[in-house]
Amino acid sequence: MSASPPNSFPDAAASDPLRLGLMQGFPPREDKTVAFADGSAWAFPGTRWAFSHMRELFPTANVSRGEAPVAVLARAERDDFDRVGFVTLDGRAMTWGESLAANYSDGIVVLHRGRIVYERYFGALRPELAHSAMSVTKSFVGTIAAMLAHAGAFDPAVAVTHYLPELKATAYRDATVRQVMDMTIGVQYSEAYADPNADIWHYARAGGMLPRPPGYAGAETLYAYLATLRPEGRHGEGFAYKTVNTEVLAWIVKRVAGQRLSTLTSELIWGRLGAEHDAHYAVDSAGTEAGCGGLNTTLRDLARFGEAMRQDGCIDGRQIVPESVVADIRRGADRAQFVRGGYTTLPGWSYRNMWWVTHNEHGAYTARGIHGQTIWIDPKAEMVIARYASHPLAANSPHLDPTSLPAYLALGKHLLATG
Amino acid sequence: MSASPPNSFPDAAASDPLRLGLMQGFPPREDKTVAFADGSAWAFPGTRWAFSHMRELFPTANVSRGEAPVAVLARAERDDFDRVGFVTLDGRAMTWGESLAANYSDGIVVLHRGRIVYERYFGALRPELAHSAMSVTKSFVGTIAAMLAHAGAFDPAVAVTHYLPELKATAYRDATVRQVMDMTIGVQYSEAYADPNADIWHYARAGGMLPRPPGYAGAETLYAYLATLRPEGRHGEGFAYKTVNTEVLAWIVKRVAGQRLSTLTSELIWGRLGAEHDAHYAVDSAGTEAGCGGLNTTLRDLARFGEAMRQDGCIDGRQIVPESVVADIRRGADRAQFVRGGYTTLPGWSYRNMWWVTHNEHGAYTARGIHGQTIWIDPKAEMVIARYASHPLAANSPHLDPTSLPAYLALGKHLLATG
Repeated sequence: MSASPPNSFPDAAASDPLRLGLMQGFPPREDKTVAFADGSAWAFPGTRWAFSHMRELFPTANVSRGEAPVAVLARAERDDFDRVGFVTLDGRAMTWGESLAANYSDGIVVLHRGRIVYERYFGALRPELAHSAMSVTKSFVGTIAAMLAHAGAFDPAVAVTHYLPELKATAYRDATVRQVMDMTIGVQYSEAYADPNADIWHYARAGGMLPRPPGYAGAETLYAYLATLRPEGRHGEGFAYKTVNTEVLAWIVKRVAGQRLSTLTSELIWGRLGAEHDAHYAVDSAGTEAGCGGLNTTLRDLARFGEAMRQDGCIDGRQIVPESVVADIRRGADRAQFVRGGYTTLPGWSYRNMWWVTHNEHGAYTARGIHGQTIWIDPKAEMVIARYASHPLAANSPHLDPTSLPAYLALGKHLLATG
Repeated sequence: MSASPPNSFPDAAASDPLRLGLMQGFPPREDKTVAFADGSAWAFPGTRWAFSHMRELFPTANVSRGEAPVAVLARAERDDFDRVGFVTLDGRAMTWGESLAANYSDGIVVLHRGRIVYERYFGALRPELAHSAMSVTKSFVGTIAAMLAHAGAFDPAVAVTHYLPELKATAYRDATVRQVMDMTIGVQYSEAYADPNADIWHYARAGGMLPRPPGYAGAETLYAYLATLRPEGRHGEGFAYKTVNTEVLAWIVKRVAGQRLSTLTSELIWGRLGAEHDAHYAVDSAGTEAGCGGLNTTLRDLARFGEAMRQDGCIDGRQIVPESVVADIRRGADRAQFVRGGYTTLPGWSYRNMWWVTHNEHGAYTARGIHGQTIWIDPKAEMVIARYASHPLAANSPHLDPTSLPAYLALGKHLLATG
């Protein structure tokens, strides 16, 4: 098991955005202003405010909750969770309560058999505010893709370029959609968040998610960026987590459905979920939703989606996701392929339709986004955890997993033991 | 009566954004893309799409509809309106039905005694989409200010600088809040939309509503812009419609309430109105809502606010706006002062708390925004009209009024005659 690297940033309490006075007052003090153009929105501790206020920093497209009544989540709150103990992946004793601050949680909801048993908000997040889901977005796109494939809208076994001839000169020229859905694509693209020259930042600038330097000559839109991707290695030879794959999948989904991603997300999921609030996607300069990580939702609504997945795609008597689509995700994919991803905190896992599958003793599977965004579904414990966070370091593995993954499993076991 | 100047733009049908294919496809064609950075979002016919999709072009702050049940608007739709005739201000015979296209209406709702008697959507607008209210926003800010003054949060008779010492070196140094609320401020500021060097464009660039040229050295935020305003003439000597006054009023309101404008709008109005949808404000780079014209709402929700005003501040049994605040607005202000505004299409009108008061035979009063945004309240006919539009020319007077104001009055008379 790997140790979590040292973190030299102020801790959760010291970086609390309200305590720091970020964006307070009329106007906020200049050194307390979190803005897009100067990069403060992406710099800790600005992130602690920004992740709960993304629509105030970027253009966004609405994801309507539709007209369905709210799917009421009954409450049966418990006071015993904070003392639940576990051992971190680097061998330290920790309690559930301690783990929340260790992970810079902005909010966490635990559902047990569909009831809210635990709900906490910290820092800038409030129940009615939408928080960035980061790459949890990918699991929405993967689920939508699987739903459309299930409905016969496209065939995952077919070449990407059958649907997107625009990609004939790119790494995707000889890839199948299935390889995209499971991220076994050989594409030259670095996801190393700590490297300021990593491709993820070029992608983010193309998508309007990062400010562009003077004289910027890179891609102007997400679509334009995808057309630049060069091959590296072969497809189908191993799991390689690369954000651009989801953007390609989102493009396929839009092309075959003839609908925007925000519309599809509403029509297939959000508008049928009984969500309390609309959600929204960040959009680029041509109005394209960032399918890689642009979704923002309230925390309870995120938990509702997890609960629908836990209940084989069903919530409030409505079958949102076909049962076979959920079963396919839960089964996961080839664990040998996953090893190529090199995640020391995720031994024995696999990746299917943009979901992470633990293959652990509880059959848990999860949606994961940088800085700690999470849906954790534990079928055996009948538990769903939705967590939003603003950890100063991006990568869940290795920074957040050591104090998160064993906490989730311990809580599931605690629920199984205490009923 | 003045004639409407010639309009050389394609007509409403020829500029229909769906027919033009604006923002259709994945990706939209480059010449069909409506974007912020290249100015197409503010250039006709891009505006015909953009005004219904502002949040996809700018950062926005949410205005929550809260938890109140939707205030149901019963339906009693009529098919006789389109044939209602009137004479335009420039002497042409026209029908109600014809006036909608003449004004490039994106949508229009007519309530009679609180029931929807007429509802139409054109172009890019749909019932669930929020459209820019432009300066109809000002009437929200004026109403909120009057509500806070009524509650004793501030005194309109007091100097602006009592609340905003930041403005001591500006045109506002010797103005009262009342003068701001009724726009009788002597400030050097041009609102001439047809002049590309008018101050309104400097204001818009400061607020992030317009792209900034390379090497931009102007104000970075709305607050910073307000601090630059120089005096011109004396206060209290006549009506002078200047957008910056509302921004100053919004600042006062935030300062005395200690709340953001989006929060205040929700807590005082939107969250108590029984709105169907959240609304939102455009925000500048420091998260400041544009109180001058940044509000976006769905059309029916805009009509709900008009209906609450018509019913002396009450809707669905809830007193949203104090009755005396509504009465004060309806009474209007000094009509002699209004003459100084020079509006040839608005004879005998006045301006009170950021509302336009007709003093006509029906006692109508109205909220007005450029390109045709309107709430029209006709107390005698028990009628409310909410209209969103995207006319190619900005100024209601003289471009839209000739085919709008007599149409509204004619419809009121028709309702009085037919019951």
